[in-house]
Amino acid sequence: MQTLDSLINAIPAPDHEAALRARRHIDGLLKPTGSLGRLEDLAVQLAAMPGFGGRPDVSQKAIVVMCADHGVYEEQITVSPQAITAIQALNMMQNHTGVCVLAANVGAKVHVVDIGIDCEPLAGIASLKVARGTGNIARGPAMRREVAEQLLLASANHARELAAQGVRLFGVGELGMGNTTPAAAIISVLANRDPETVVGIGANYPQERLHHKVEVVRRAIAVNQPDARDGVEVLAKVGGFDLLGMAGVMLGAASCGLPVVLDGFLSYASALAACRIAPALHDYLIPSHLSAEKGAQIALDELKLTPYLNMDMRLGEGSGAALAMHLVDAACAVYDNMGTLAGSNIVLPG
Amino acid sequence: MQTLDSLINAIPAPDHEAALRARRHIDGLLKPTGSLGRLEDLAVQLAAMPGFGGRPDVSQKAIVVMCADHGVYEEQITVSPQAITAIQALNMMQNHTGVCVLAANVGAKVHVVDIGIDCEPLAGIASLKVARGTGNIARGPAMRREVAEQLLLASANHARELAAQGVRLFGVGELGMGNTTPAAAIISVLANRDPETVVGIGANYPQERLHHKVEVVRRAIAVNQPDARDGVEVLAKVGGFDLLGMAGVMLGAASCGLPVVLDGFLSYASALAACRIAPALHDYLIPSHLSAEKGAQIALDELKLTPYLNMDMRLGEGSGAALAMHLVDAACAVYDNMGTLAGSNIVLPG
Repeated sequence: MQTLDSLINAIPAPDHEAALRARRHIDGLLKPTGSLGRLEDLAVQLAAMPGFGGRPDVSQKAIVVMCADHGVYEEQITVSPQAITAIQALNMMQNHTGVCVLAANVGAKVHVVDIGIDCEPLAGIASLKVARGTGNIARGPAMRREVAEQLLLASANHARELAAQGVRLFGVGELGMGNTTPAAAIISVLANRDPETVVGIGANYPQERLHHKVEVVRRAIAVNQPDARDGVEVLAKVGGFDLLGMAGVMLGAASCGLPVVLDGFLSYASALAACRIAPALHDYLIPSHLSAEKGAQIALDELKLTPYLNMDMRLGEGSGAALAMHLVDAACAVYDNMGTLAGSNIVLPG
Repeated sequence: MQTLDSLINAIPAPDHEAALRARRHIDGLLKPTGSLGRLEDLAVQLAAMPGFGGRPDVSQKAIVVMCADHGVYEEQITVSPQAITAIQALNMMQNHTGVCVLAANVGAKVHVVDIGIDCEPLAGIASLKVARGTGNIARGPAMRREVAEQLLLASANHARELAAQGVRLFGVGELGMGNTTPAAAIISVLANRDPETVVGIGANYPQERLHHKVEVVRRAIAVNQPDARDGVEVLAKVGGFDLLGMAGVMLGAASCGLPVVLDGFLSYASALAACRIAPALHDYLIPSHLSAEKGAQIALDELKLTPYLNMDMRLGEGSGAALAMHLVDAACAVYDNMGTLAGSNIVLPG
């Protein structure tokens, strides 16, 4: 894709006829109508996605982990050493991280992308890096708008290349010390809520210093005055490279008519911005878990998504996306492999 | 096991030292402390179970599906033809049912048990049958107490044999037209709640006739006057063979120091009764999903269990147990396969 507009316009409408056919098929399966609940709805959602060409098959799965550093780190909004971003990106390559273990467990491949880590190039890691970390959002924009557009496109094209290689189910993840601060800023702006209600402890930030983190988010919004109607502007002004990269993957997957599984709090922020940029994206989003981060429910309400899993998780990395991919597999298995009522001569009333 | 008392007494206490060691191990893994939430707690719960001999390995999984008919069927408390119990039991053997598909998806084997279907012996299906269906609980007890004790033991021993064959993770499921009625009666009695708050539509019973089902449950309790302190009596008087069989599997698994994954509403009823019989069982229970059946939350509150999954499912059969087994696999994978903070020279504050 050459431009953001062409990317947005490429997102196909779901195939409502295919959805109706899928619902009829499911209603004929060997069970009381509707009794598999949201697993049935998920199968119908998948069946309507044009990227599958009529038959959902999610055997090839990719979790794209966007890694970047954040200028706002200098405001002391996290207790994690900043060097961990680069260290963990390398650990991803050795399959040592949480998302790697959970992805392996569901047969998904982890794709690590350096989209702005504050370090020299890392061996073996794909790079979309244009800068070593964003600007400090408490003092100015994270990046220029042109950079945001460029990186959205590059991330979307990264996902589109994976789709061209056969990937049929995407998950998003991130890695970036301090990134719950820009995520909280994005959610505050896009859900129009006071930062107080959204800012949480992230990676174990001390509860008693949370007021400081809230203050930094307030300042970021006050300094940058992002226009909530403009998702790109929100990402550029109070976002981050990793958050932007995830939004790009969502747009890229949707532009191929393929599903993308959200992760937790960070991914909610990206999804909110991505849906502001391209509302048609929403049909391709699959929620995973209810993040334990404070503003999680606010973000999910704004996204109009109900998570499937309640694990009290707040690791990020795509760990929740990996865990929920099992449910997508299960929905496909039900659709493909269950017997039918007709095959057992069962007639149910209603 | 020869007697119910010996079975109850065989349930080992969890190994608290092993739990502490497991927690220390998890706190040293490559992630902020506590950030994998309930996945960490699940790994600790498993590590404390003596049946694993120090190292949880759930590669051998069994879902035991207890199938039976119910005398209360004649009160017209379900719209499903009673013959479906036997038909679906046979469909289980052909891997056509929902639980079979979901079990295959997680590598679990389905074990079907005829514990009182109203039919002749079914080829290839294990049998613990002592009667073709229970008595009508709206008019008298489901079964005599001696029968209940005998079947609890037999079901527990069935699970113990599976454990002897190498099974390390159990799931429970059931099949029995009309069985949400006795389940609602059990939950009403053991949670001390009015049937009105517990009785739901089961397999699509018409909402406008629900008052009749409530009335039948009320009558069952009034006629039988079960003592809520006595789990065996509650199962014998207002329960059913399938519900009793699941309680037996729970007791059997726990007596081997091994975990059992609950399913939905029916399994909550069995678990409540089983915990009344043997409170030590509770440490071996793993919740799965929040059933869509009306009284589900009441039962879970009484069980002091919080489900992991919110799928709006109400199929039963063990389908929810199968779906949640992925989470148990994931907890073990995290425990076994993640790198350590020390291995990356990361020191986190706190």
